Amino acid sequence: MAGSTFGNIFKITTWGESHGKGIGVVVDGCPAGLPLCEEDIQKFLDRRKPGQSRYTTQRKEEDTVEILSGVFEGKTTGTPISMVVFNKTQRSADYSEIAGYYRPGHADYTFDMKYGFRDYRGGGRSSGRETIGRVAAGAIAIKMLESMGISVAAYSKSIGGIEVKEMDWQERFNNPFYMPDAKAAKEVEEFAAKKMAEMNSMGGIIECVVKGMPAGAGEPCFEKLDANLAKAIMSIGAIKGFEIGSGFDASKATGLTNNDAFRMEDGRVVKETNHAGGVLGGISDGSDIIFRAAVKPTPSVAAMQHTVNKAGENIDVSIKGRHDPMIVPRAVVVVEAMTALVLVDALMTNMTARMDYLTDFYKNKK
Amino acid sequence: MAGSTFGNIFKITTWGESHGKGIGVVVDGCPAGLPLCEEDIQKFLDRRKPGQSRYTTQRKEEDTVEILSGVFEGKTTGTPISMVVFNKTQRSADYSEIAGYYRPGHADYTFDMKYGFRDYRGGGRSSGRETIGRVAAGAIAIKMLESMGISVAAYSKSIGGIEVKEMDWQERFNNPFYMPDAKAAKEVEEFAAKKMAEMNSMGGIIECVVKGMPAGAGEPCFEKLDANLAKAIMSIGAIKGFEIGSGFDASKATGLTNNDAFRMEDGRVVKETNHAGGVLGGISDGSDIIFRAAVKPTPSVAAMQHTVNKAGENIDVSIKGRHDPMIVPRAVVVVEAMTALVLVDALMTNMTARMDYLTDFYKNKK
Amino acid sequence: MAGSTFGNIFKITTWGESHGKGIGVVVDGCPAGLPLCEEDIQKFLDRRKPGQSRYTTQRKEEDTVEILSGVFEGKTTGTPISMVVFNKTQRSADYSEIAGYYRPGHADYTFDMKYGFRDYRGGGRSSGRETIGRVAAGAIAIKMLESMGISVAAYSKSIGGIEVKEMDWQERFNNPFYMPDAKAAKEVEEFAAKKMAEMNSMGGIIECVVKGMPAGAGEPCFEKLDANLAKAIMSIGAIKGFEIGSGFDASKATGLTNNDAFRMEDGRVVKETNHAGGVLGGISDGSDIIFRAAVKPTPSVAAMQHTVNKAGENIDVSIKGRHDPMIVPRAVVVVEAMTALVLVDALMTNMTARMDYLTDFYKNKK
Amino acid sequence: MAGSTFGNIFKITTWGESHGKGIGVVVDGCPAGLPLCEEDIQKFLDRRKPGQSRYTTQRKEEDTVEILSGVFEGKTTGTPISMVVFNKTQRSADYSEIAGYYRPGHADYTFDMKYGFRDYRGGGRSSGRETIGRVAAGAIAIKMLESMGISVAAYSKSIGGIEVKEMDWQERFNNPFYMPDAKAAKEVEEFAAKKMAEMNSMGGIIECVVKGMPAGAGEPCFEKLDANLAKAIMSIGAIKGFEIGSGFDASKATGLTNNDAFRMEDGRVVKETNHAGGVLGGISDGSDIIFRAAVKPTPSVAAMQHTVNKAGENIDVSIKGRHDPMIVPRAVVVVEAMTALVLVDALMTNMTARMDYLTDFYKNKK
Repeated sequence: MAGSTFGNIFKITTWGESHGKGIGVVVDGCPAGLPLCEEDIQKFLDRRKPGQSRYTTQRKEEDTVEILSGVFEGKTTGTPISMVVFNKTQRSADYSEIAGYYRPGHADYTFDMKYGFRDYRGGGRSSGRETIGRVAAGAIAIKMLESMGISVAAYSKSIGGIEVKEMDWQERFNNPFYMPDAKAAKEVEEFAAKKMAEMNSMGGIIECVVKGMPAGAGEPCFEKLDANLAKAIMSIGAIKGFEIGSGFDASKATGLTNNDAFRMEDGRVVKETNHAGGVLGGISDGSDIIFRAAVKPTPSVAAMQHTVNKAGENIDVSIKGRHDPMIVPRAVVVVEAMTALVLVDALMTNMTARMDYLTDFYKNKK
Repeated sequence: MAGSTFGNIFKITTWGESHGKGIGVVVDGCPAGLPLCEEDIQKFLDRRKPGQSRYTTQRKEEDTVEILSGVFEGKTTGTPISMVVFNKTQRSADYSEIAGYYRPGHADYTFDMKYGFRDYRGGGRSSGRETIGRVAAGAIAIKMLESMGISVAAYSKSIGGIEVKEMDWQERFNNPFYMPDAKAAKEVEEFAAKKMAEMNSMGGIIECVVKGMPAGAGEPCFEKLDANLAKAIMSIGAIKGFEIGSGFDASKATGLTNNDAFRMEDGRVVKETNHAGGVLGGISDGSDIIFRAAVKPTPSVAAMQHTVNKAGENIDVSIKGRHDPMIVPRAVVVVEAMTALVLVDALMTNMTARMDYLTDFYKNKK
Repeated sequence: MAGSTFGNIFKITTWGESHGKGIGVVVDGCPAGLPLCEEDIQKFLDRRKPGQSRYTTQRKEEDTVEILSGVFEGKTTGTPISMVVFNKTQRSADYSEIAGYYRPGHADYTFDMKYGFRDYRGGGRSSGRETIGRVAAGAIAIKMLESMGISVAAYSKSIGGIEVKEMDWQERFNNPFYMPDAKAAKEVEEFAAKKMAEMNSMGGIIECVVKGMPAGAGEPCFEKLDANLAKAIMSIGAIKGFEIGSGFDASKATGLTNNDAFRMEDGRVVKETNHAGGVLGGISDGSDIIFRAAVKPTPSVAAMQHTVNKAGENIDVSIKGRHDPMIVPRAVVVVEAMTALVLVDALMTNMTARMDYLTDFYKNKK
Repeated sequence: MAGSTFGNIFKITTWGESHGKGIGVVVDGCPAGLPLCEEDIQKFLDRRKPGQSRYTTQRKEEDTVEILSGVFEGKTTGTPISMVVFNKTQRSADYSEIAGYYRPGHADYTFDMKYGFRDYRGGGRSSGRETIGRVAAGAIAIKMLESMGISVAAYSKSIGGIEVKEMDWQERFNNPFYMPDAKAAKEVEEFAAKKMAEMNSMGGIIECVVKGMPAGAGEPCFEKLDANLAKAIMSIGAIKGFEIGSGFDASKATGLTNNDAFRMEDGRVVKETNHAGGVLGGISDGSDIIFRAAVKPTPSVAAMQHTVNKAGENIDVSIKGRHDPMIVPRAVVVVEAMTALVLVDALMTNMTARMDYLTDFYKNKK
């Protein structure tokens, strides 16, 4: 099926493989009149591009975005916005080796099982480069949210098991790990150096916080806001878990400790705590939305591993190339992008939740 | 928006409120020729119905299903299967109290914010009774999977923090907690008694195992099998987290410990371990699919809590009624149902993944 | 696939067979706060029910609707509205004859080819009774449109080739043909009597006019308003053609005769003519929407016809039973219903067409 | 909403404006293993490109397609196929005049009403150039159908009211009108010369015939094959009507003349006539699928017309530029493309119609 389209009213379709001509996305359903230029997109792509530090892949790719449609005189027109990043560094590498076996932890085997053959150059469609389309589309959604006073911010909560202890929000832009705790970042640095020397890799946890979200977004039953966030985040390669609010800890809590009491504050209903993570019954409650995603260690490691080849023989392999010892820092902006896509779609949908919204809207339109 | 429809080719639409005339589901896209009768559905509904033990709500409801369409001469016809459970015990309770305030941990507040008013009788659409439609539809999906040699089994992995230690697969049907460990179940019994005496509630973790799944189901990018499982499971009320395979533990692992090595066994490709949980790159890899869901404690507790009323005053409330001190045991079958729905849809979609599948299928059809 | 669900934000799912337990529909995505009761639905169902005149089937069925969910204290709640008409007159007729052969002009053969067997009782799912769900759902959409000042009215434009000559709008409720021309209706009466005596049947053309439609509804490219109207109308059994505005006559016109000139009238942009039928580039232009649908003659005729039986033999058959000599009059309300469903969905979608719509909407929501 | 995506399993998303950087399409859900190269696409684009004869626009554009993803080693990989035609002849024309008023018969006014402003360069997204994406995607669908022994062929049935009389199938490639009747084509030539001299334009009717279609494609109720064909064809700009089989003539027929009798032929069930047009109950019946589409005259004419400008004044305009005096010949291939997209999607969906299809498919997959 068509697995590369996401969203209902605000809908994106991504395309492209690691070593093809480029990677792109079509954003359809973006409202008209949003000021938009390539720089709005590029600043987000720059946060995921390779080669930002010694802790990510050393490949050099500028990942420069081009807007091909949907923007006129500096504003979105309401029609599809096509964006592309042409692959500049398609080197004529020899992939014959990798073509012949299944890399552990990768999608090589499952693509072969599903499609009968695969584009083995750098992972093809299952490569992390696929997230370029997500980030480019998410940049538009984030800009829309900003104009509604809603912010989305993710960061590394832990890497290799080393957790943020003291939150210092601004610090996350000061270290290569997007970690809002300089001391923890320093520890990660040492841990990473050790793992890299062992030709090994590490995982982590990304936390995302949405501020300024109005109550009411998300639909009962299957289109719950947290269900769609879970899908969006779990659809990012390497993500193995998702939890919102108190998450897995809720399984050990009691009703009395886990419930968030309501109280009045400045004439508004607020919650005394936020174990719910900003969503009740699948609908945003006006509090911050807070969730976490578990990122597995990069499967590509240079140390020797067991696997099988296409001839059906057990073999030992060492994955060569310039791989990320950790994906976490580059995935932070991908989490923000996917979050924004879900929020925008839910906010649009919510505009039709009440009959008076429709009558008010159309009463002056004739 | 229409949040009550789930699935693409195999599509279900649920309806009904806690205290309305009934709860139902329409299953559309079910293939023709599947033997089906009400008993096939009822046995699953019986596992979620109230009053099964002293650890679940003491309300008495038989939840008897009726098939209204889509089955003829004992087989599905390929057209929509409408099923309904009429609510028998709609008592003329006085809901005026609950109508006046927002229960902590419930969707009362968010429904009011979204829709301008709500059906306050027993939670209305956000009640756990909504899952009747999911289980009835899931029963059909499970029957389809069985005919393909695929089994779906969930159980309580932990309740109130007490975890299964020694797996005894059959034991899960021998205790009221669906816990495959008699000793752990005994501990839960004691813990539950204590919490119930405190007019409190508890949560837990449900684990689900799918056996016999062929490789190839799930679509790259956004329609990954694990992403759709996450959405399906997170869309169940009270679920706060989802993880597959090593899940959140992957965040602390390294590539070398987390990767699953491939090897040949009896002429087939298998994995030495299953940290991936049966899905690589969003596509089933032929191993068991294993995931977990975190269930929050029942928000309805009789002990006193803070909240606000619709007049905007801070008040203290005690939620009366016959509530489940734990939802986990009754949610086990809901998890199985949602899992089966996702798998069936993915398996159907995968039938069009290769051009030769189409030419083979149609070559004898003319 | 799931072919019984229609619409995107305002979504309906129908179910039921001619001779099953009932026919129903689930309407999901209906805004909260619309006053709704069974009488709002029943008055539309009464216009399609059998036995209204000697020119429609003489079966007697009251087709009484019951609302099972989604309405509370007289208003829609925003959650799914389930409606059902239980089949009262399922007579234990002997269908063994019809089960054995394929009725010409019916879906018997194609259902057998598709599903391997079929529910042969009265056409099963392909029966005209399936439209009960459409009309019930459409009644809600029509009520929504009315509250926005939009009216939908269809009528028989021609029956058996006899066309309306002088439009008399009110007259359409005065004759059994929904024909707004008493003289033409009289001619149809005579023609019909003759055809009925011959055990034959006749077709016709239904025209539909939408007044009060604001400009802007419909999406460019594939979700054009007229494209969705065409799908909606062509999805009604027995409809063989759809045209909007000048329709097929446009094929013989020139640009100068077919273009609608714009001009100012009372400070508003209007069109001097309406060859476009109220839609330009797939988007409503603020004029009346006018389209026509071709209805084929009822395929069930008592006169002798050739066909084949399931044993593969050529046979002659006479279709017994109480069939409509013409479907046109009963299809008029079905056309109105499908039209309203398309319009409501397009109007909802259009509420997100501009960025300032979103910022205006949410600026007071926090 | 996202109006630029079409199809369910086989899904396409188009983008691009008349005078933007390019026009493109992403085809998602195409099965793996289909041999595909740019020439497969180009030959269809060449049939719609401008400047093919003096009866179409004299603009010169090569419309050269590039495949950017989804094909590897000459075969589709199962992942999204991105195709683009870069606009070569974006001349720095002065559009300030056209920007200031609404062209009759065009979408200028409705785009302005919907989005608040528009890309006025050559019609922007509502330009006929948008069909490049449809044709490129349709070329893939046609190639898929060919490998299943199914052919799709459209032609001009009438232009300016001049109809094909004697069908000469091969002749349609011998005249600039795609008309399978040399004599009729000659008449059209004379008629067109006259209208062009008058600075006027003309419309016509396109007929499409599908041969080799197996029975069983199309879903009951809303996803009927003919309903989806109607939507697909009506979504092409300038199409004002759609009819299948006997179409509008059915409205004047009787059951006895319009029903197609079944009979046995060489051990197969066939129909003696084909008034149904190959579809019964929304499902293909194994006969040829035959339908017609009404094309309006090109709205851009150089002769003087009334309209209004954005200042709200009544003005007279003459649309300058190199416009098609008729769209029909170039639209023929667009009709074929849209038809193929619908058929492929329906054929894929039909593969899941029976439970034994699933069990057969998966029994050897484990």
